[in-house]
Amino acid sequence: MTKWVYGFGADQTDGDASLRDLLGGKGANLAEMASLGLPVPPGFTITTDVCTAYYDNDQNYPETLKAEVDASLAAVEKSMNMKFGGSENPLLVSVRSGARVSMPGMMDTVLNLGLNDETVQGLAKQSGDDRFAWDSYRRFIQMYGNVVLGVDHHEFEDVIDGFLRHNDLKQDTDITAEGWQEIVEEYKELVERDTGKPFPHDPQEQLWGAISAVFDSWMVPRAITYRRINEISDKWGTAVNVQSMVFGNMGEDCSTGVAFTRDPATGENYFYGEYLINAQGEDVVAGIRTPQSLTIQGREKEGSDLPSMEETMPEVFAKLDILRTKLETHFKDVQDIEFTVQSGELYLLQTRTGKRTAQAALKIAVDMVDEKLITQDEALLRVDASSLDQLLHPTLDPNAHKDILTKGLPASPGAASGQVVFNSDDAEALANKGVSVVLCRQETSPEDISGMHAAEGVLTSRGGMTSHAAVVARGMGKPCVAGAGEIHIDSASRMIRVRDREIKEGEIITIDGSTGEVMAGEVATIQAELSGDFESLMGWADDRRRMEIRANAETPLDAKTALEFGAQGIGLCRTEHMFFDADRIQNVREMIFAVTEESRRDALEKLLPAQRSDFAGLFKIMDGLPVTVRLLDPPLHEFLPHSEADIEHFAKTAGIDGDQVRRRLGDLTETNPMLGHRGVRLGITYPEIYEMQARAIFEGALEAGGNIIPEIMIPLVGAQKELAMMRGVVEKTAAAVFEEQGKSLEYMVGTMIELPRAALTADEIAHSADFFSFGTNDLTQTTLGMSRDDAANFLPSYVGHGIFERDPFTTLDVDGVGRLVELAKVSGRATNPDLKVGICGEHGGDPASIMFCEQIELDYVSCSPYRVPIARLAAAQASIAEEARLGKPEADKAKKAA
Amino acid sequence: MTKWVYGFGADQTDGDASLRDLLGGKGANLAEMASLGLPVPPGFTITTDVCTAYYDNDQNYPETLKAEVDASLAAVEKSMNMKFGGSENPLLVSVRSGARVSMPGMMDTVLNLGLNDETVQGLAKQSGDDRFAWDSYRRFIQMYGNVVLGVDHHEFEDVIDGFLRHNDLKQDTDITAEGWQEIVEEYKELVERDTGKPFPHDPQEQLWGAISAVFDSWMVPRAITYRRINEISDKWGTAVNVQSMVFGNMGEDCSTGVAFTRDPATGENYFYGEYLINAQGEDVVAGIRTPQSLTIQGREKEGSDLPSMEETMPEVFAKLDILRTKLETHFKDVQDIEFTVQSGELYLLQTRTGKRTAQAALKIAVDMVDEKLITQDEALLRVDASSLDQLLHPTLDPNAHKDILTKGLPASPGAASGQVVFNSDDAEALANKGVSVVLCRQETSPEDISGMHAAEGVLTSRGGMTSHAAVVARGMGKPCVAGAGEIHIDSASRMIRVRDREIKEGEIITIDGSTGEVMAGEVATIQAELSGDFESLMGWADDRRRMEIRANAETPLDAKTALEFGAQGIGLCRTEHMFFDADRIQNVREMIFAVTEESRRDALEKLLPAQRSDFAGLFKIMDGLPVTVRLLDPPLHEFLPHSEADIEHFAKTAGIDGDQVRRRLGDLTETNPMLGHRGVRLGITYPEIYEMQARAIFEGALEAGGNIIPEIMIPLVGAQKELAMMRGVVEKTAAAVFEEQGKSLEYMVGTMIELPRAALTADEIAHSADFFSFGTNDLTQTTLGMSRDDAANFLPSYVGHGIFERDPFTTLDVDGVGRLVELAKVSGRATNPDLKVGICGEHGGDPASIMFCEQIELDYVSCSPYRVPIARLAAAQASIAEEARLGKPEADKAKKAA
Repeated sequence: MTKWVYGFGADQTDGDASLRDLLGGKGANLAEMASLGLPVPPGFTITTDVCTAYYDNDQNYPETLKAEVDASLAAVEKSMNMKFGGSENPLLVSVRSGARVSMPGMMDTVLNLGLNDETVQGLAKQSGDDRFAWDSYRRFIQMYGNVVLGVDHHEFEDVIDGFLRHNDLKQDTDITAEGWQEIVEEYKELVERDTGKPFPHDPQEQLWGAISAVFDSWMVPRAITYRRINEISDKWGTAVNVQSMVFGNMGEDCSTGVAFTRDPATGENYFYGEYLINAQGEDVVAGIRTPQSLTIQGREKEGSDLPSMEETMPEVFAKLDILRTKLETHFKDVQDIEFTVQSGELYLLQTRTGKRTAQAALKIAVDMVDEKLITQDEALLRVDASSLDQLLHPTLDPNAHKDILTKGLPASPGAASGQVVFNSDDAEALANKGVSVVLCRQETSPEDISGMHAAEGVLTSRGGMTSHAAVVARGMGKPCVAGAGEIHIDSASRMIRVRDREIKEGEIITIDGSTGEVMAGEVATIQAELSGDFESLMGWADDRRRMEIRANAETPLDAKTALEFGAQGIGLCRTEHMFFDADRIQNVREMIFAVTEESRRDALEKLLPAQRSDFAGLFKIMDGLPVTVRLLDPPLHEFLPHSEADIEHFAKTAGIDGDQVRRRLGDLTETNPMLGHRGVRLGITYPEIYEMQARAIFEGALEAGGNIIPEIMIPLVGAQKELAMMRGVVEKTAAAVFEEQGKSLEYMVGTMIELPRAALTADEIAHSADFFSFGTNDLTQTTLGMSRDDAANFLPSYVGHGIFERDPFTTLDVDGVGRLVELAKVSGRATNPDLKVGICGEHGGDPASIMFCEQIELDYVSCSPYRVPIARLAAAQASIAEEARLGKPEADKAKKAA
Repeated sequence: MTKWVYGFGADQTDGDASLRDLLGGKGANLAEMASLGLPVPPGFTITTDVCTAYYDNDQNYPETLKAEVDASLAAVEKSMNMKFGGSENPLLVSVRSGARVSMPGMMDTVLNLGLNDETVQGLAKQSGDDRFAWDSYRRFIQMYGNVVLGVDHHEFEDVIDGFLRHNDLKQDTDITAEGWQEIVEEYKELVERDTGKPFPHDPQEQLWGAISAVFDSWMVPRAITYRRINEISDKWGTAVNVQSMVFGNMGEDCSTGVAFTRDPATGENYFYGEYLINAQGEDVVAGIRTPQSLTIQGREKEGSDLPSMEETMPEVFAKLDILRTKLETHFKDVQDIEFTVQSGELYLLQTRTGKRTAQAALKIAVDMVDEKLITQDEALLRVDASSLDQLLHPTLDPNAHKDILTKGLPASPGAASGQVVFNSDDAEALANKGVSVVLCRQETSPEDISGMHAAEGVLTSRGGMTSHAAVVARGMGKPCVAGAGEIHIDSASRMIRVRDREIKEGEIITIDGSTGEVMAGEVATIQAELSGDFESLMGWADDRRRMEIRANAETPLDAKTALEFGAQGIGLCRTEHMFFDADRIQNVREMIFAVTEESRRDALEKLLPAQRSDFAGLFKIMDGLPVTVRLLDPPLHEFLPHSEADIEHFAKTAGIDGDQVRRRLGDLTETNPMLGHRGVRLGITYPEIYEMQARAIFEGALEAGGNIIPEIMIPLVGAQKELAMMRGVVEKTAAAVFEEQGKSLEYMVGTMIELPRAALTADEIAHSADFFSFGTNDLTQTTLGMSRDDAANFLPSYVGHGIFERDPFTTLDVDGVGRLVELAKVSGRATNPDLKVGICGEHGGDPASIMFCEQIELDYVSCSPYRVPIARLAAAQASIAEEARLGKPEADKAKKAA
């Protein structure tokens, strides 16, 4: 027969922490503590199976439940030597929900259940405090009335306000026992008026009312929505915890508090917490009275005059301090504890893993390894890889005031303040004068790169997480808020409009690229520093991960940053970024305007020296490491002048008629540039462009000397013949350069897999490829048929409706895009077992996506320099998780580590 | 031991028509004729295996080849009673290449091989005609010198010109035997001067030189390119045919000619052909003398005075006429014959299947069934489905003069002439006055539809085979040339520029949508008529095909046309086309400008009656047939005004500020509209739009009465939840309408599969779908990452390089897109075995794509009304081919027919 109820307490405990699915998080931890012999007020947990059975059976309980609850309640009565509903020594209980994971919308807590007009007398006698008893009673009616019976809490507050007014009193503390007694009567009338039924007097009725309220709250819309978004099954259900009450507000020998076994903000290993004498738990949280520090150390740290618990209640504190160690040793992690001291007796009401900042997580993980509390593997799993971002970028001072204008997408982490500017030239001019600026654009284009470099941060009103602004800013490690749709950027009248507010050029704003917030004025920031702990953890991660980590970088600065952050090579060097330099763009444009192959070759000839020296420089920095160079990818129109002034300037310099320039611009304009004449299509129609680039790479590598194996990558291939033709161009050029210079080097030719057709025909394409690099940005756009630049209008709604769990441009869409990636990897390797396979889209820096890359056994991931540490840690976590999933024996791990 | 040489002739023939791969097309047919006992000059074929061995072995021949050739030559000598290289009665031969399929660039023919200074004497004696002998000799040197030794043919002509000038003669026929003898000497000197070696005297050396020239020509660049484009393997190789010469120019009892067993232009069953007395084959083709008709009937048809062969050589003609019947009976198809009469003796030199016009193909196929020569299945396979287009549209008079300006893509078949106009309004205005116009646009948009209707044809300078102009024009059955990139359409100065020519507004041009040609002035057209043969063939096709054929149509006119052409329902009704009507677009725009759901609902409310009556009308026409209605698909900005005048007009009418309109326009502009906020994404963000459309469909269907099962199709679905949500909206609306009206009807809800992700997750999507319709236009765009509107700049180059065999927007890319289609079909059916599956992209009207649809067993194809007959025939051909491929027993077919 199914057991529906699990008891816990000093006398007998049925469950433990392993029964989390059945008992919920709270219930399992209470059972665990009780079975460790910790002082937990006795109680019982009604299992999540009851919840499931309740809904499977038209909201009726299993037949035997009532008897089990009665038995468990009797056991609690016996353990406490009290009587539920008894007029002498009455047992009061709390009723709480407890699902596997906490969930907004669910019913939380009812305290003091069991009080009525009789038992309140017993409580008064037992506590020797009439006021306490009647105050507890009114609190119970208020809480039960609100969460179980649905009476608005304002109505209860109105009663108290009326009483205070009527009796000319100032605050709650002025109300006497008699006053609370009067209020209780008014409360009861209020409930009867509102619900049409008297407030339940029978403690059994109260108990079952509360239990049902918990189960019913499982299906409120907010909880359902939350579950849908978070992919939590309705079948999981919630448990109900019924626990005997203890009171921290029964006198001066009572107290209540919350504590962390280590400092959750810094990770420092000292007992961190707050308490209040003669108070209930909610008082600590509510902030009516100032809580006091647990320890002398804490008090001194905070510079507080209020005495610590270590001083006021030294004996109880000593017990608590022992429990702190016991809990950490047992759970092997920082614990977040709730405790109550009733008449000098210490009780633990809850323990759970303590939430912590990124910095604290790092320190705690490393410390605990030093303390031999956890293994290095465990430490690696303790730090949220994404959170490392917080350590690498300045963040807003959490105590600073924020005048929030609107919220966009958190496109590139970090906070920045500066004067509003609307174009690159202004950004550069002001930055050169030492003025901090934030570049504000509808969206950015490659022409804005110098302005983005000059600015402290970038704000766009359009574009998504992988828009040009977002990608480039992340690459630069520069804060960016993208797609802030409420903002109208009016560069003509040089102002920003947000709803009814206007921010003029030159005024200061602050953006938080970690949250997407845009604020008026300057908000103070703080810069976290990379500690030795960071290096330790990264070292363990490097030992543990299987995949290589590379960076997407093209400038010497990016490359150096990448190396500092531990990149093992460059996975994507976008050569077109080298074309936007002021002194080169003219040649690029002349090349585009060339009408014959010959004149195009002339223009390319002029670009060659610049590209060659770019590559030579990059190869010198990356000596000994692989560098993947992608040949020209964007459509040619990206390089052309767009403003009238630029057009005229270019026409004049190049000696071409302005109208001819305009006509060519018109000819090159595309309806869907993402799907247009770009990538290898340029190489097929103008092979001389790729030829020049290949020459620049080979000549640059020979010039750099050292040990470089360039990996030449052909973008946007969709058919094997495209790659075969371009491979021919590269090989012919290599042979020519080697012949000319009398020396040679090794190189590889491969392709980006960024079109569904490439993935579908990867078996053929692999015949001409030494490597595949998955360009998951474009592969996501084509597979989903979704332009990242245009998705801002509907993607939020998609994530909101749970159509996509997460933004597919941030976290790889495993079911769609991932399936193509895996297919291509498997079929590519079937053709060419030596095929090197990696990923170079934005997803290369996303932990969930990195996990997928590990599962399908890619060789490397490549991401923007600032995400390299994240990728290193995430790759290690993925290795550990994969070994666990595949059940690799420990021996294997040991062997690998050795 | 491999047999390298196959003899043919009266005495012994080794091969037959089945050995085409080994003997090549020509050799196999010669063997076939010989083995039928037809009068073929004896000879032998060196097999294609020799070619392969030759290249596998560094251009060396197999060891035993020489001996086999010698033996075969000896057999020919014996059969002809002549001696190769003999001074008496010398045997002369022709040497010809002969691959499986004919191939440009390959060496064609050397005649009269075996002549030298001695054998020419023998030939003179044998023929009794010195002049003939020396003329033959000089022809041989000329031909051999050119094709085998590489001497430019102009140099030979210069020699003759010099001789004529020097001797004051006018033409070749004035040259005597002695003259030719002199020329032969000069020829030999020319060859020695050019090649550094004397012209080969030894007939054996001549023979092997010619054989090697054939094999070497297999690998000339032009042949290699041709094979690459046509996917012919290099391994196939070519054969070499060596055949004894016969002469039609040895006197008045000699003649030569070509004949078709039926009229290849009309298909009429009479002996069609031409001959010349005392002439060589090349004379008939060269056009120096006017060839004469074979038959009296032919002569009379042509109104010619020259006597027919039936009259001049009645006995030989009678023999030829018997062979005609014999050949047709044997090959069961029209034969294209070459014959020569030497001294009254008839020889057949070649027979092959005769090429014919579409009209002829149709008539011949139907006639031959009536004659019980072939089966209905064979008849169905004899007509090229695509060629039916020629029968349905007017074509250019092939005899008319054409002043070709440029060539674009043959986007919609048929020819049209008219005045150049640059916008829809002008097109309509002039058309209303009865003036024929051709609408010329850079590209068309939905706003141009009325202008396209009014015009005789459409010309665009941009866009591909599936651009808006192309798709809409095909749907209308209106000629269209798209993407004519050389044309600059300058609508400001109202002219077209093509290279150095200018065509002003109002001048007349002609476009041929079947070839892509654009011509200045008016070119006469002819209109082919649909004969009873057409109906017969279509009837057989309908009996034979497995797949249903539907049409893509939304207007009553389209729907009626579709029914006339035999459509069995509508596979794609694009509801947005209903939004462009002048009286509706205002409401559509107001709907777009609505800022709240409520005001949007108000605007939709106004659109409802119009949509309802559209559907009611369509359903009435299509009574009893399925109609698939696609809900709103294009991005909203397509409906907005774009010109300043339109913007102002709209703003005024709607009572909105013009700037507000412009701002909204800016907000809605997308970087890649193809991948933007459209399709189901509109339904997700504005469900009230789809709700209105669903209501219009249900109310319209109930109003129409009759027997209609609307199939409601949600476009651009990429995830199952999207479809589930929209299905919910449709079902809720259906329930509401049925409740209101007290009656109900059956309906289906399904989706277009047009994104790779939809195909990849079809197993999930099928949970919410009653049908899948493959939108292969968009699926091709996304799978290949190629915008059809922008592909004109590179796609021709792609097809030219053989990267894609054919335009993937015309013929389904089976390896990429096709793989997704098949995957989706299979996994969709696995989830939902009743899933109805069809295709509604442009590929639905393309025979090769229809073949693929049959192979993967789709339920139907849907195409533009004018392509319905093509699809009916192609589907029948596909059924027959699939049965053959799967080896279905004839019994099955019989059963099915019964």
